[in-house]
Amino acid sequence: MTTFKITLAYDGTDFVGWQRQADGVSVQGLIEEALAEFDSVAVAVAGAGRTDAGVHARGQVASFTLEREISPDTLRRALNAKLPETVRVIGAETAPPEFHARFDARSKTYRYRIANGPVLSPFERRYAWHVPEALDVEAMADGARRLHGRHDFAAFQSAGTAVHSTEREVFAAAFSTLDDVLLFDIRADGFLRHMVRAIVGTLVEIGRARRRADWIDAILASRDRSRAGRGAPPHGLFLMAVEYNRPSCR
Amino acid sequence: MTTFKITLAYDGTDFVGWQRQADGVSVQGLIEEALAEFDSVAVAVAGAGRTDAGVHARGQVASFTLEREISPDTLRRALNAKLPETVRVIGAETAPPEFHARFDARSKTYRYRIANGPVLSPFERRYAWHVPEALDVEAMADGARRLHGRHDFAAFQSAGTAVHSTEREVFAAAFSTLDDVLLFDIRADGFLRHMVRAIVGTLVEIGRARRRADWIDAILASRDRSRAGRGAPPHGLFLMAVEYNRPSCR
Repeated sequence: MTTFKITLAYDGTDFVGWQRQADGVSVQGLIEEALAEFDSVAVAVAGAGRTDAGVHARGQVASFTLEREISPDTLRRALNAKLPETVRVIGAETAPPEFHARFDARSKTYRYRIANGPVLSPFERRYAWHVPEALDVEAMADGARRLHGRHDFAAFQSAGTAVHSTEREVFAAAFSTLDDVLLFDIRADGFLRHMVRAIVGTLVEIGRARRRADWIDAILASRDRSRAGRGAPPHGLFLMAVEYNRPSCR
Repeated sequence: MTTFKITLAYDGTDFVGWQRQADGVSVQGLIEEALAEFDSVAVAVAGAGRTDAGVHARGQVASFTLEREISPDTLRRALNAKLPETVRVIGAETAPPEFHARFDARSKTYRYRIANGPVLSPFERRYAWHVPEALDVEAMADGARRLHGRHDFAAFQSAGTAVHSTEREVFAAAFSTLDDVLLFDIRADGFLRHMVRAIVGTLVEIGRARRRADWIDAILASRDRSRAGRGAPPHGLFLMAVEYNRPSCR
């Protein structure tokens, strides 16, 4: 038995998300089906981040255990031969038997892409949220800085979600620009459901000057989802990387 | 009557190319159909570059004359409202009555994108040629430099094409890299049919060390299409810009 850690990139446009659903094609389901041809027993694949329908990944991490002996490089090639072109295994390695992609993750980095110009480029239509109005990026950066550190992010999670704790620590949250695209990168020890999209929707309201940057402080303090801005659409969001630290010691 | 110059971006994946064909959807056809709703007479649209099926554009230029009075900005919005999301008018301006997007072009710039790594990113599958082997980019750059200046490019055009002259002047041809993608940018006073793809296919043969950089000199001298490398696929090619100089004086 060998435990593997694989790194995945996928175009989320046509999937119901990472997680298996009753209907529709999920990334987890595709990988489990591809692995079914290797092992006599059904293989359960754990993903680090449960990306929603339409959300993309450039560095999702998944773990699973196979009975069959196989080298990581052969596994990577064999999986890519079976998976559609929209899902690629970009890295594969063996891991300690107890390694779990989600429980062992120390932090994750998401990127949100905003196409900020009057006309949406045909090449961004699946990969960025189109916000045609001019945005006050300075004010948005000010709002982003207020997210740094340990906070209760209850106001930035989907209504009705039950989790043990809604406290999370944000290590970095900043904007940069690449041609006409505004990039928002955020790294935290964990994310609540829809948290990045709720944050981006809120920061765009600040960028449109409908609210001031200190609105972020008020929302955090309220712990009330109805206070934050409307969530940004899924197709601008990318899971960029999952960071691990001594994966054998969870 | 007003003559317009519009700049277009399009994702060429689903089109038969710029030019109207008996079957299939062309970019020219889409624009002519969109303009048919403005004018009582059929509008003929001239494009600067006749991009082939699957080839993309970030800066195609087209010209046409309308009987109806309309501001360039209104025209741009109205066309974008009618065109599919895969074709966008990114700029519109009025032009002198005699302006012609193709005849007045002084030069054009094409970019070819090569995804050069073991695994093809899902985000590059429509926009780059996947060449998994390591490439000798220095040798390719040496080959590209040999294209500079005025040459007879007969060996780099599609077999059976009839044009007045096969001499063209290349002003710039160089490689750069952006993450895992190798970019080849070439600017010339004009391009023969399939010329960029034949050049890229040849340079990749040099990059694979199957040929030396001075093979370019031998191919140019031969004027024989059978001497050059196989053409690169269309989906890595982008028409980036068309340059004009005093468009009223052709």
